Amino acid sequence: MAENVLVVHGGGPTAVINSSLYGVLEEAKESGRIGKVYGAIGGSEGILKERLLDLMQFPEEKLQLLLQTPATAIGSSRYALEQEDYEAMVDIFRKHEIKYVLLNGGNGTMDTCGKIYEVCKDAGICVVGIPKTIDNDIAITDHTPGFGSAARYIAETTAEVGADVKALPIHVCVMEAMGRNAGWITAASALARKKPGDAPHLIYLPERPFNEEEFLEDVKRLYEEKGGVVVVASEGLKNGDGEPIVPPIFKTERATYYGDVSSYLANLVIQKLGIKARSEKPGICGRASIALQSPVDREEAVLAGREALKAAMNGESGVMVGFIRDETEDGSYRMHVELIPIKEVMMYERIIPEEYINERGNDVTDAFVKWCKPLIGGELKDMIDFKEYYEEKEGGSR
Amino acid sequence: MAENVLVVHGGGPTAVINSSLYGVLEEAKESGRIGKVYGAIGGSEGILKERLLDLMQFPEEKLQLLLQTPATAIGSSRYALEQEDYEAMVDIFRKHEIKYVLLNGGNGTMDTCGKIYEVCKDAGICVVGIPKTIDNDIAITDHTPGFGSAARYIAETTAEVGADVKALPIHVCVMEAMGRNAGWITAASALARKKPGDAPHLIYLPERPFNEEEFLEDVKRLYEEKGGVVVVASEGLKNGDGEPIVPPIFKTERATYYGDVSSYLANLVIQKLGIKARSEKPGICGRASIALQSPVDREEAVLAGREALKAAMNGESGVMVGFIRDETEDGSYRMHVELIPIKEVMMYERIIPEEYINERGNDVTDAFVKWCKPLIGGELKDMIDFKEYYEEKEGGSR
Repeated sequence: MAENVLVVHGGGPTAVINSSLYGVLEEAKESGRIGKVYGAIGGSEGILKERLLDLMQFPEEKLQLLLQTPATAIGSSRYALEQEDYEAMVDIFRKHEIKYVLLNGGNGTMDTCGKIYEVCKDAGICVVGIPKTIDNDIAITDHTPGFGSAARYIAETTAEVGADVKALPIHVCVMEAMGRNAGWITAASALARKKPGDAPHLIYLPERPFNEEEFLEDVKRLYEEKGGVVVVASEGLKNGDGEPIVPPIFKTERATYYGDVSSYLANLVIQKLGIKARSEKPGICGRASIALQSPVDREEAVLAGREALKAAMNGESGVMVGFIRDETEDGSYRMHVELIPIKEVMMYERIIPEEYINERGNDVTDAFVKWCKPLIGGELKDMIDFKEYYEEKEGGSR
Repeated sequence: MAENVLVVHGGGPTAVINSSLYGVLEEAKESGRIGKVYGAIGGSEGILKERLLDLMQFPEEKLQLLLQTPATAIGSSRYALEQEDYEAMVDIFRKHEIKYVLLNGGNGTMDTCGKIYEVCKDAGICVVGIPKTIDNDIAITDHTPGFGSAARYIAETTAEVGADVKALPIHVCVMEAMGRNAGWITAASALARKKPGDAPHLIYLPERPFNEEEFLEDVKRLYEEKGGVVVVASEGLKNGDGEPIVPPIFKTERATYYGDVSSYLANLVIQKLGIKARSEKPGICGRASIALQSPVDREEAVLAGREALKAAMNGESGVMVGFIRDETEDGSYRMHVELIPIKEVMMYERIIPEEYINERGNDVTDAFVKWCKPLIGGELKDMIDFKEYYEEKEGGSR
């Protein structure tokens, strides 16, 4: 019997989910025992509709484009599966001689993965999860493919916006970062800094209640000192009662469309402080940017795809590929893959721990920066600032 | 007497204004007749405060960083100069043996350039303008350094966001583009398309009155057809009475901070059509992105700097470096530099001509695409879409 593979994408895309698909395809080719690698066209709904495309038919140069294609090349869905859908799947897998089912997604998809595992247990079909989310909120794994690229994007972009604001320091710029209830991407903006005083000047995470008074105090003080202030704020900021500071503009069972936090905060600065302010909201732009993809993230995403298929071919099922960070003597970055029982990660949302947030709740700690830095894959580009040189050597106000 | 040069940056930055500065420095070195090249630290205000830094003292490897530094490395200002300021400048130029004054900026800066030219006429000091603006709204010149990179950014980003929206086609994404009263950047999003049906699906320019009813009709029709719709809208959209569709959030004499047009339109889609929608607003992110700098734009910015100094050394004054596009037999892109009398460009704002806008006012024409394409400097990256392949070969709805 031919051994076929099915890859399914769930939820919102990242800059490297297609890289994991590439990893599966490369592993399948090298293994010598796989017939077809089906992509489910349009996510889990694509399974039910038997919209299956064999990706092994495409030449290597086409497959390599996966490494530089954002979004998902096979499509995703937010279709809510019912119990009968899960049961129907087993027959579909059998019909297409699918022996290995790989689900690539975030918390919601890992939940689906666990449920498919349950119905496949007695059918000899192995089900393995490949983690994916820019939000980095999957439990147990040290980090999640997709996050490193989102982190590199926000870091490089914050550095660039910081340079822009400093060149003409007449306003407050509030940049919004994705991440829902988890502040990982917002926090990663701290990697923009090469020296003290660099942007971002304030970082607000959803893990701490947002205090408008303290925010305005901080902005005012920094504006008076610098003239140009860069704030990075999470889309998921909540007040002391746990309510979003801006009501969501659209809600479905599986997804929340957040209100414009950056726009709200910029307006607050204008109205309460009389200081010019503008907002930046590069949401999807960030998770779809290939130019600012992290090379480490891309390689790890390929690895996650390979390891998932390897595990399935070894008979593992009901597990997710996880990354465990190794302690190294010289402190350099190294990780290894472990298989994590899927029920330990299903629907659990991992947020930033307290030790990564400063006391006032307007910045991250050095420990966070140390943890995050290797994931963005190399230093940000060098820039030159003659204005700063002049001010340091010759003195004078801005 | 030593011949010194002064370079002054005005207004908001671009991704390549520092490349023009690099061009001036290279030309100065090669000429063998220039002593110092001063940067005015902090724009025209820096001249009055005599905050002058000689950039010739820096080694070549530092200067080359200018090519990859966004914002402005010497700083800019929006200081409103008075007549007495202009007169004071002549003495400052004399004191520092500055024979050539190069002002690098947009319409406002070219106005300043003309006024400095007037006071310098009898002092043997040559004053030349170097155009710069992402908005591309300077008169006579075919295009302006800074625009090509902003165009490449919006094109590549729209293509990436388009792929993201198509992978999970459940909403309308409204992206906002800078450009004030001129729609050039917004229009350049059309270069994202590689084939019919690609994003952007709708483009709204400030040159045409914005009609909410037609907008909602168009969005509804496309949503029903595609599921995922990408709209690119100018920050400067106005209604039939010439009023901004969203009131500006902050206004100064020299600058307007536009309201959040993308957020407003996304909310309109939600409220009037009940369709999910989200906004993207990568404003400063776009003008500061080095990863998506256009190589053609960068080269032309260097050239503009070189040519400005050459012109000044030739005794030209009261002129701006302009780009004139050549007709070529094979239709390939070529341009040459001409000097344009500064009074012909002062404060005049160039908007998109009618022949570049389609009849319904929701897209650009092929003539615009043909004009704009060479400026982004090469093709956008290739992507792969197995979902689209499946739908074309195997049929079936999204």
